[in-house]
Amino acid sequence: MTEIKKYYIGIDLGGTFIKGGIVDDEGAILVSDKVPTESDGGEKKVAENIAYLCEKLLNAANMTTGDVEGIGMGVPGMIDVKNGLVIFSNNLNWKDFKISEAVGALTGLPVKIANDANVAALGETKFGCGKAYNNTVLLTLGTGVGGGIVIDGKLFEGNRSAGAELGHSVIVAGGEQCTCGRKGCLEAYASATALIRDTKRAMEADKDSKMWEIGSVDNVTGKTAFDYADKDASAKKVVENYIEKLGVGITNLANEFRPEAVLLGGGVCAQGDNLVKPLQAFLDKEIFAGAMGPQVRILTATLENSAGLLGAAALFME
Amino acid sequence: MTEIKKYYIGIDLGGTFIKGGIVDDEGAILVSDKVPTESDGGEKKVAENIAYLCEKLLNAANMTTGDVEGIGMGVPGMIDVKNGLVIFSNNLNWKDFKISEAVGALTGLPVKIANDANVAALGETKFGCGKAYNNTVLLTLGTGVGGGIVIDGKLFEGNRSAGAELGHSVIVAGGEQCTCGRKGCLEAYASATALIRDTKRAMEADKDSKMWEIGSVDNVTGKTAFDYADKDASAKKVVENYIEKLGVGITNLANEFRPEAVLLGGGVCAQGDNLVKPLQAFLDKEIFAGAMGPQVRILTATLENSAGLLGAAALFME
Repeated sequence: MTEIKKYYIGIDLGGTFIKGGIVDDEGAILVSDKVPTESDGGEKKVAENIAYLCEKLLNAANMTTGDVEGIGMGVPGMIDVKNGLVIFSNNLNWKDFKISEAVGALTGLPVKIANDANVAALGETKFGCGKAYNNTVLLTLGTGVGGGIVIDGKLFEGNRSAGAELGHSVIVAGGEQCTCGRKGCLEAYASATALIRDTKRAMEADKDSKMWEIGSVDNVTGKTAFDYADKDASAKKVVENYIEKLGVGITNLANEFRPEAVLLGGGVCAQGDNLVKPLQAFLDKEIFAGAMGPQVRILTATLENSAGLLGAAALFME
Repeated sequence: MTEIKKYYIGIDLGGTFIKGGIVDDEGAILVSDKVPTESDGGEKKVAENIAYLCEKLLNAANMTTGDVEGIGMGVPGMIDVKNGLVIFSNNLNWKDFKISEAVGALTGLPVKIANDANVAALGETKFGCGKAYNNTVLLTLGTGVGGGIVIDGKLFEGNRSAGAELGHSVIVAGGEQCTCGRKGCLEAYASATALIRDTKRAMEADKDSKMWEIGSVDNVTGKTAFDYADKDASAKKVVENYIEKLGVGITNLANEFRPEAVLLGGGVCAQGDNLVKPLQAFLDKEIFAGAMGPQVRILTATLENSAGLLGAAALFME
């Protein structure tokens, strides 16, 4: 007996582009494409563009709407998942827009939505580095620190998808200013932005640092301190402090959620073992009840840009 | 048509006493009683004592095992909920004991277990101050800071019930020593123990403090600083710092879980509005996205000692 495959449309709705793909229930992307979002044209225009992208994808895959189970969408903003409502989206300039209803009416397909960062966490858990696990926490280490939580294979977003703001947890009360208004958030220590800030500060405090080989602090990236950590004490200190603060944040999440794995995404993860090995050692030492409790593994994301559309499709597979 | 009521046995298994009650599905306690735990007698003895207490409760209520749906138990320690297994219990000196099987064999009833602190959170949510809500986080402010998480009316405990260690989240990296080995945990600032430590320190730093009216630092309790906050600057500072640190911890949890309500239990809650009003103001100001997002209410627990057995019975009502 052959198992009949099911197919889904996954949509990753961004401020500039709408990316989409047709995905099977094992996470294979049959076709993918993108169209401009054109959010300036208003909510109706964006819904039409989504419907147009869905049609393009179905045509490319030689399918009709009858061949797919529905459309899953990751949307930037605060979402009322149950009612398919975007309560507020800064990127799209939307307030109280029933996008599920609008796209459903245009395509005739069932639509499910969730917050885009959370959806990416679901994608990475179902089909990426976390696929061996059903309970994960994802941190994205980029310009900011994003988060996502998967419990028993399902996205956990909190009331109106306003939870999982894992970057906005204070780990140093009264510490570095965060973009959210608070002081000392994980984001203010573990984002690539924070890493760059601390690298610049370290260079300015140590005029003999080998890091000055890059010419100017304007050339500092999230890689600089890691590149020089083996040969420069100031660079090493920046890396150690970064790992310690990120380790504190990860241990906090481990004690709260006790997931099977913490998944790390974003640019800083390119450091691979240089990042993950000391973090895992820190976590194993600091986690509540130490080796008595179940271990929490730290893994780096593997899906890159397709996490969003795969996770969106996975909203139908929860 | 009359709705037929269902009944459950709730057991709160402690190191010294086993407390139990027969509870209906609206949280009314028909009868309650307790027997000594006698954990020195070994796991079998404790299971027998639980079965004996169940029998006593049924007799007192004029019921037989056929009249109840099952036995719910809150157990101190690390629990494998799915397998009814106590992985480890420091209080009872147990390792890998299938308590559900043992009590089930003795009573002929289905048995469900969970961690005792978590079970109390479920009780407070189902039948106490959180009964209007399905998504709550509970913090117990006592000797330590305990935690519990309810999502969609069900207990969330993390892998092997090792999650929800909400007191062991660092809010001041490198700060006060915590009992768990880390430095700067919420527990090290928001427990009654921490409040007493800070009150003593404030008295010792200010020999003119009105708090010296109590005679000696040995007489300091968790109430002292609150009692003098209106008339003594040092006492006021202790209270303000306590509320700020607890506020940081609550805001972190609100950003991560975005529950409908945060429930506060434990001795410090006797302060009522003196505690809750400034905390709510702090949270409303600091929470991610401010007034754009759904509000998180702060409430104080109402069930006191019966939260455990009510929550244990509620394991059958999830």
